[in-house]
Amino acid sequence: MAGNSFGNLFKLTSFGESHGEAIGGIIDGCPAGLKIDLNAIDLEMQRRRPGQSSITTSRNEPDQVHFLSGIYEGKTLGTPIGFMIRNKDHNPKDYSEIESSFRPSHADFTYHKKYGHRDHRGGGRSSARETACRVVAGAIAKQLLKNITIQAFVSSVGDVFIDKPYQDLDLSRTDDSIVRCPDKATSKKMIERIEKLKGLGDTTGGTITCVIKNTPIGLGEPVFDKMHAQLGKAMLSINAVKGFEYGSGFCGAQMKGSEHNDQFLEDETTSTNRSGGIQGGISNGMDIYFRVAFKPVATLMQTQETIDQTGKTVKIEGKGRHDPCVVPRAVPIVEAMAALVLADFYLLNNISTINSL
Amino acid sequence: MAGNSFGNLFKLTSFGESHGEAIGGIIDGCPAGLKIDLNAIDLEMQRRRPGQSSITTSRNEPDQVHFLSGIYEGKTLGTPIGFMIRNKDHNPKDYSEIESSFRPSHADFTYHKKYGHRDHRGGGRSSARETACRVVAGAIAKQLLKNITIQAFVSSVGDVFIDKPYQDLDLSRTDDSIVRCPDKATSKKMIERIEKLKGLGDTTGGTITCVIKNTPIGLGEPVFDKMHAQLGKAMLSINAVKGFEYGSGFCGAQMKGSEHNDQFLEDETTSTNRSGGIQGGISNGMDIYFRVAFKPVATLMQTQETIDQTGKTVKIEGKGRHDPCVVPRAVPIVEAMAALVLADFYLLNNISTINSL
Amino acid sequence: MAGNSFGNLFKLTSFGESHGEAIGGIIDGCPAGLKIDLNAIDLEMQRRRPGQSSITTSRNEPDQVHFLSGIYEGKTLGTPIGFMIRNKDHNPKDYSEIESSFRPSHADFTYHKKYGHRDHRGGGRSSARETACRVVAGAIAKQLLKNITIQAFVSSVGDVFIDKPYQDLDLSRTDDSIVRCPDKATSKKMIERIEKLKGLGDTTGGTITCVIKNTPIGLGEPVFDKMHAQLGKAMLSINAVKGFEYGSGFCGAQMKGSEHNDQFLEDETTSTNRSGGIQGGISNGMDIYFRVAFKPVATLMQTQETIDQTGKTVKIEGKGRHDPCVVPRAVPIVEAMAALVLADFYLLNNISTINSL
Amino acid sequence: MAGNSFGNLFKLTSFGESHGEAIGGIIDGCPAGLKIDLNAIDLEMQRRRPGQSSITTSRNEPDQVHFLSGIYEGKTLGTPIGFMIRNKDHNPKDYSEIESSFRPSHADFTYHKKYGHRDHRGGGRSSARETACRVVAGAIAKQLLKNITIQAFVSSVGDVFIDKPYQDLDLSRTDDSIVRCPDKATSKKMIERIEKLKGLGDTTGGTITCVIKNTPIGLGEPVFDKMHAQLGKAMLSINAVKGFEYGSGFCGAQMKGSEHNDQFLEDETTSTNRSGGIQGGISNGMDIYFRVAFKPVATLMQTQETIDQTGKTVKIEGKGRHDPCVVPRAVPIVEAMAALVLADFYLLNNISTINSL
Repeated sequence: MAGNSFGNLFKLTSFGESHGEAIGGIIDGCPAGLKIDLNAIDLEMQRRRPGQSSITTSRNEPDQVHFLSGIYEGKTLGTPIGFMIRNKDHNPKDYSEIESSFRPSHADFTYHKKYGHRDHRGGGRSSARETACRVVAGAIAKQLLKNITIQAFVSSVGDVFIDKPYQDLDLSRTDDSIVRCPDKATSKKMIERIEKLKGLGDTTGGTITCVIKNTPIGLGEPVFDKMHAQLGKAMLSINAVKGFEYGSGFCGAQMKGSEHNDQFLEDETTSTNRSGGIQGGISNGMDIYFRVAFKPVATLMQTQETIDQTGKTVKIEGKGRHDPCVVPRAVPIVEAMAALVLADFYLLNNISTINSL
Repeated sequence: MAGNSFGNLFKLTSFGESHGEAIGGIIDGCPAGLKIDLNAIDLEMQRRRPGQSSITTSRNEPDQVHFLSGIYEGKTLGTPIGFMIRNKDHNPKDYSEIESSFRPSHADFTYHKKYGHRDHRGGGRSSARETACRVVAGAIAKQLLKNITIQAFVSSVGDVFIDKPYQDLDLSRTDDSIVRCPDKATSKKMIERIEKLKGLGDTTGGTITCVIKNTPIGLGEPVFDKMHAQLGKAMLSINAVKGFEYGSGFCGAQMKGSEHNDQFLEDETTSTNRSGGIQGGISNGMDIYFRVAFKPVATLMQTQETIDQTGKTVKIEGKGRHDPCVVPRAVPIVEAMAALVLADFYLLNNISTINSL
Repeated sequence: MAGNSFGNLFKLTSFGESHGEAIGGIIDGCPAGLKIDLNAIDLEMQRRRPGQSSITTSRNEPDQVHFLSGIYEGKTLGTPIGFMIRNKDHNPKDYSEIESSFRPSHADFTYHKKYGHRDHRGGGRSSARETACRVVAGAIAKQLLKNITIQAFVSSVGDVFIDKPYQDLDLSRTDDSIVRCPDKATSKKMIERIEKLKGLGDTTGGTITCVIKNTPIGLGEPVFDKMHAQLGKAMLSINAVKGFEYGSGFCGAQMKGSEHNDQFLEDETTSTNRSGGIQGGISNGMDIYFRVAFKPVATLMQTQETIDQTGKTVKIEGKGRHDPCVVPRAVPIVEAMAALVLADFYLLNNISTINSL
Repeated sequence: MAGNSFGNLFKLTSFGESHGEAIGGIIDGCPAGLKIDLNAIDLEMQRRRPGQSSITTSRNEPDQVHFLSGIYEGKTLGTPIGFMIRNKDHNPKDYSEIESSFRPSHADFTYHKKYGHRDHRGGGRSSARETACRVVAGAIAKQLLKNITIQAFVSSVGDVFIDKPYQDLDLSRTDDSIVRCPDKATSKKMIERIEKLKGLGDTTGGTITCVIKNTPIGLGEPVFDKMHAQLGKAMLSINAVKGFEYGSGFCGAQMKGSEHNDQFLEDETTSTNRSGGIQGGISNGMDIYFRVAFKPVATLMQTQETIDQTGKTVKIEGKGRHDPCVVPRAVPIVEAMAALVLADFYLLNNISTINSL
């Protein structure tokens, strides 16, 4: 398998299967001299960790990060930051049934066909457990991006949507809600929806919106590595994601140019922001915002028909401990991936013109 | 500027400004011994080229590709394929007004801020003229992918949508319509819509759907380089794109797991295909399909207010020759980028297991 | 710091400071289904490990490799192989003196200037301890390259040289000698030389020759990534290396073309092999051989003058435990790096022509 | 073929066969706003071009570079710099004999075996004609590196060596000599040697020494991308190169540590410079110097025995126009490759610490 690295200059390479000994990663390219706030990293890990509330999986992982290199006397050395998270609460017996069967809409079938040999336990490498490493790296990227704030929140669960623009929400209150929806009334409805489906052994999809403020003008490399193309790749690489749109998004495709254009004002801001803070792939200083669609979790606590490795129809029943809806826990992952994208472009932008050298 | 390369093993690097001497590129990593059908490449270029119909820009570029290396006696040498397309019908006078002003929702402002020094003529490097190089490389990638068919079509213009699933359309007839919509009745409405807006000096957005058939099982590198993450990046890197979704997409986020899961059948296909042919980032052999949202063209044939480089409000009027809607010409670009993604994964998949070595 | 990855398809990324908690790495791109012989890996580690004989450093590191992912039921999964080696016998007090002084011909000064902030203990990231990770990855690469044999040996210590061509040596006996010289008489002289210098608190340089047999024809990517260019980079990236030559090397530069050319025979071998098994950057099936020059170890057990961080002259005395000559322990490192280069080209060569797809 | 790109941030990708329509390349990552001196580029091209003197090949190529993008109003745009050099004086008939035979010590055999299909004319992609693109990119890199001087010269031809340290030579006079040896008496002997061999239809090898002054402290990325490892790869990727050494090089391997160490002085220079300006892979501010070995040109104007594609012994006679010794023309190529390495590290060093951001 290739494709276990993300980023060009600020680069994360990760490893680890869901029920192996450990997961972990290496962050290469973080500049020297950055003070590292370990508590802030731990806080992000707690936001992602399983077992954090009644609407998430009950797998209980402390998800403590061990840094093995690259940080000395509280500051980055400029050398690669190696880290590891032990897998503790694994229960491989939950997975014996799927050793030879393919769960519907899971990666069991494709891994089996592609690699021949697979670690079926908890989905192995295809498990979202891998995203814990993204959160570690993203938490460090956030510290590099000091003045930029990256705030994601759950904007829908099933067909329960927040019906306000993000400007009318207090994004600092997102984590007050276990579903991570900053609108109190909607949050309540979302939780009810999830609990009801959980009771039925069913699951639901949802969307996350992310808002990035205070991005300096000039980040992003036009043509193939446009800011929004990298953000899109980053988000689509998160487990269960089915779609990405930024600024006016799919709605913009229904608009006329005379409605859609953002007019420049004399202070170099724009009167509207359908561009989503990005023009020609480069940040223009306005808020960057985008929306990410997550499909419903494929593992149901219901009996489903499927086939086994010989192609014979079999029945499987959901075991293991799974989230009825991934979006609450995916909020810190979305933020982490956004931070990785921005950190990379931030470094690269330092060498865009001879004046900045 | 970095970010002018796309792909890892089958890699395109491109160059060129809209009104410079030429645009072109280098394709590195195409295997030796591939018979090249130059007519097929030319045909793709004709599908993208300006001036092809009454609803596209009247800029008249023959867009003839000169291959400079890498092909000998009709077959690839395995060496880099260099190519060049001269810019012929440029009319830099059209752009003198915007030398010092920033067109709304264009890249003028961000390029100016990022690079200090810019070629304003026709948008320079930010122009969609650059996509001609993608079509050249994509046409070669298609020839490498012999049995795989990649078919894009216009699925909406403004709020005029095709209201049928793609399975009910004859995708071989897409090019019969100048708007590249395979549904006759809808095509007619789309053309009317575009002509009406063109008459008003206005523009419109739209969407393109792309369907890929006969993909072998196993393409895609899970984790960061999932098949759909790379497709998403590829599409989002095309000018004017605001969103990407595959399979069930944003609709999937509203569904329950019990509705969404694709059941495996004994022939290893699935009964439904909400997964969009991709599970865990790897192709599963079903059709891959996705949808791409394009914003309305930002250049209007109307007077607009904006600011100049000193921050003063000025009025500009659209000049130059522009499309009232990009989606008809973007169809071959979407196909080309999809072909680049697949060609790259196809090569990489040859070294996934020791059995394939 | 960037540059902690080696290879394109078979890629090692490493981390770790000499006296930090652990060193380790991630191998990405190893094909699935490869049976892993852990004993063979351990054996390579023993060949490199400190404290293995009377002529190496007495630092006592068991250098046990913990594999954390990527191997399941004895075979590679195709997923990234994460591994870790704990640092055990570190004695940071040995290094308190150099916390603020720069050892001559060490990286202390340049790290201090480049990064501002450094881990001085044992040289931190600049220590050759990092090469243990290369040996792990190289040992796996060797297993992938089954039929290819890679054999390095010490060809000189100071001015004590083996005076025979490698064809006259039994390379299977290299490890019989603690100095890893397969010629018995020369080995004895080399050991005497090293012991004498060690007694004086002094050190010596040396060279290693490496011979690679059974390489298939066709490995290597001409132009920038020629086989010998990658081998050269690989070797020059090993600590203390000052030079690299392959085939006729520097002697070849004194020859005439009529003396130097290798004549092809009807069995497609060549009568001589001044090309060193590589023509135009591509392996031609003959033995690949090259020679690597190592400078004398910079840390002396003598008093030396140097400067401290304020620029003032100070005297330092060698502490810590160091090798009087690195070449005996560098033999497995040279082999490991050669294996990484070959594994990468071996994978890449599988997609060179459409016939191999 | 992969491997047609060099560099990470300042990156050259090249294309072109010796007797195809053109050769050329794309330079991606050159910062915006750099004033380009086209005459200086042309001058470097003249230094490399064939037909420049009585001791070089008589192929007459004007080698005029056409820049197609990336430079506007005399300054770089930050966008990719595309360029092209037409092949003019090609005489494919000279090569009909080798269409089916393999010239000794050439790449004909390995290309044929690796790719199946090859352009035999003038060696196709394996020809040193490709290095013209390196000189273009290197000339631009030199302009980016304003204060750093990179000066190469011929230090030996066959066994005729300059017997002085480089400090005793006036490197500004190198080009006064057609053999590019700055020592007048030695230059004369070298020219005599070459002319004598040329008269016999024979060829000779030689070495080039390169000295880089005024490199700032801190360039180079330790571990795999050490400054000297990248320089070594760069040099070894030039046609006909067999060896590379820097600083004390192979001689250093014969020395004792007490002789070899460079003592730091209070001004942060070192009293000697056996380190060759690089410690731990990072420049220390002293002169960087290295030596490159070139084998004798393989094409002789004599009859040689070889085999054809069927494995049968045949006789071939040298045709085409070839250099009797490559080193005079390789001097600007060595400088160009050194400039590419330094430009890349220079850019990267701007993001090494948070203080430089």
